[in-house]
Amino acid sequence: MTKTLLAIHGGAGTLLKSEMSPEKEAAYLAALNAALLAGNTVLASGGSALEAVEIAVRSMEDSPLFNAGKGSVFTATGEHEMDASIMNGKDRMAGAVAGVRGIKNPVSLARKVMEKTEHVLLAGKGAEDFAKEIGEPFESEAYFHDELRYKQWQMVKGTDTVKLDHDLNPEKKLGTVGAVALDKQGNIAAATSTGGMTNKRYGRVGDSPIIGSGTYARNETCAVSCTGSGEFFLRGVVAYEVSALIEFKGLSLQGACDEVIQKRLLELGGDGGLIALDRNGDHALVFNTEGMYRGFIKEGEKASVSIYGS
Amino acid sequence: MTKTLLAIHGGAGTLLKSEMSPEKEAAYLAALNAALLAGNTVLASGGSALEAVEIAVRSMEDSPLFNAGKGSVFTATGEHEMDASIMNGKDRMAGAVAGVRGIKNPVSLARKVMEKTEHVLLAGKGAEDFAKEIGEPFESEAYFHDELRYKQWQMVKGTDTVKLDHDLNPEKKLGTVGAVALDKQGNIAAATSTGGMTNKRYGRVGDSPIIGSGTYARNETCAVSCTGSGEFFLRGVVAYEVSALIEFKGLSLQGACDEVIQKRLLELGGDGGLIALDRNGDHALVFNTEGMYRGFIKEGEKASVSIYGS
Repeated sequence: MTKTLLAIHGGAGTLLKSEMSPEKEAAYLAALNAALLAGNTVLASGGSALEAVEIAVRSMEDSPLFNAGKGSVFTATGEHEMDASIMNGKDRMAGAVAGVRGIKNPVSLARKVMEKTEHVLLAGKGAEDFAKEIGEPFESEAYFHDELRYKQWQMVKGTDTVKLDHDLNPEKKLGTVGAVALDKQGNIAAATSTGGMTNKRYGRVGDSPIIGSGTYARNETCAVSCTGSGEFFLRGVVAYEVSALIEFKGLSLQGACDEVIQKRLLELGGDGGLIALDRNGDHALVFNTEGMYRGFIKEGEKASVSIYGS
Repeated sequence: MTKTLLAIHGGAGTLLKSEMSPEKEAAYLAALNAALLAGNTVLASGGSALEAVEIAVRSMEDSPLFNAGKGSVFTATGEHEMDASIMNGKDRMAGAVAGVRGIKNPVSLARKVMEKTEHVLLAGKGAEDFAKEIGEPFESEAYFHDELRYKQWQMVKGTDTVKLDHDLNPEKKLGTVGAVALDKQGNIAAATSTGGMTNKRYGRVGDSPIIGSGTYARNETCAVSCTGSGEFFLRGVVAYEVSALIEFKGLSLQGACDEVIQKRLLELGGDGGLIALDRNGDHALVFNTEGMYRGFIKEGEKASVSIYGS
């Protein structure tokens, strides 16, 4: 049987090293370890890669530390609009939701879109109607209210978001969570979830719910989950590009990830990172930002989590 | 200067040959010719490929014959929800809208998302708010009301859409319009627009507004606009896959399009087609369905339009 592997990220929009305290760092590392443990428990008991990425992402969605689920940032109107997607490498089935409000775990709703409908992507109120019909858990505004996120929003409310995104607080632009896994059966899967951009307007959708841009999985090549400046990941079709470089150009997993993040994405002007793995047990955690909340665990080895460095 | 080229499609969901009358066929061919003429006038006067694909798609959006803009099909609640996207091969800038109601020309709104925001994709009410702010033209429900579309909806209203999609009326599932162009400056562009699926629910979004799946353009490789069973085009990341096969595997434009539509898409179980061209003046109009409303015109040559055959 295949040796299992799980990798996760909590976004390439980390706090600047200069703003990170030992207490905050410990909290982030603990949350990453908890997500790894949750997903790895699934894999260790023979569960599927699909189940493992869902569970790992749910764990991060349930933490207030990451910009996804409970920790989602505020939109321009003070709401929380979330996006998520999931893809199964075995059959390339996929599901995604965009711009949903009040859903406790968007990644689980994405999985249900995949399993209970003929569709891949449901958006907005329609996706919420679907969630209600199937009894998917909702939470109140209070659940999603976080004082830090609220203050971040108050700082930029009514102003030109875009400028401030770059200048003051990269975290709110690059906040995302994701997971990729390899199970005992040799199947791989990927999932991504986000709370979007602080003060975002106009129903903006980034790469997180888009198959091929934010998430991709195909047993023959790799499973990928991205985090970064969403618009550039959309234009670069980043997640699928890693797969295409492996399949069509024969690059290694690490080679393909480096080529995409350190070269092609930079040429477009985009910043961020991705996590990827393949069924041979190779994995890559690549980013062109100061840091990326990340971790991985291989069957029989100790879990590893980190924030900065390369 | 480069010899200009323009190709268009009005969807791979054509009427079955057995249901096509000479009068209907003449009307479709006339509408395709009108769209080619509109786009080609832009190219002939030195306009950009980006402008040409927008104008050609607008022409088809304004016709009741195609499932886009005015001719959009009815959703399960009797509304019209439209999607569109556009991409400029010169700089890979892109814009898209998903699930917008009342917009006269979604492709033009997609272009304005590209040019007037830092975003690529806006969805639902947020996209409509943006349209209002910039003064984009809206139309009333009456404008979008078409008796044939209404009857199609009445046939399936309140029933299991999905089954009927396959059995009775492929047109409503595969209806889309799109254009790709090469201008005198040697730049290429692509655009796609759709009215979605008859009786669609839950805010379903297909491939048409997704960069990499329904639309893609990059000067170094190709411009592509797709039409077909959207979920399979999303999972296959079809439009970008054509580009990747050219760039990473060295396939010709025609070779890449054939590989994607006649082999890889079929392996996934998808049906439909695409139009593509490159800056060398090569073009391909490929589909695995009975027909695809389509046309192309090369500078100095006569326009060609057709529906069936290969």
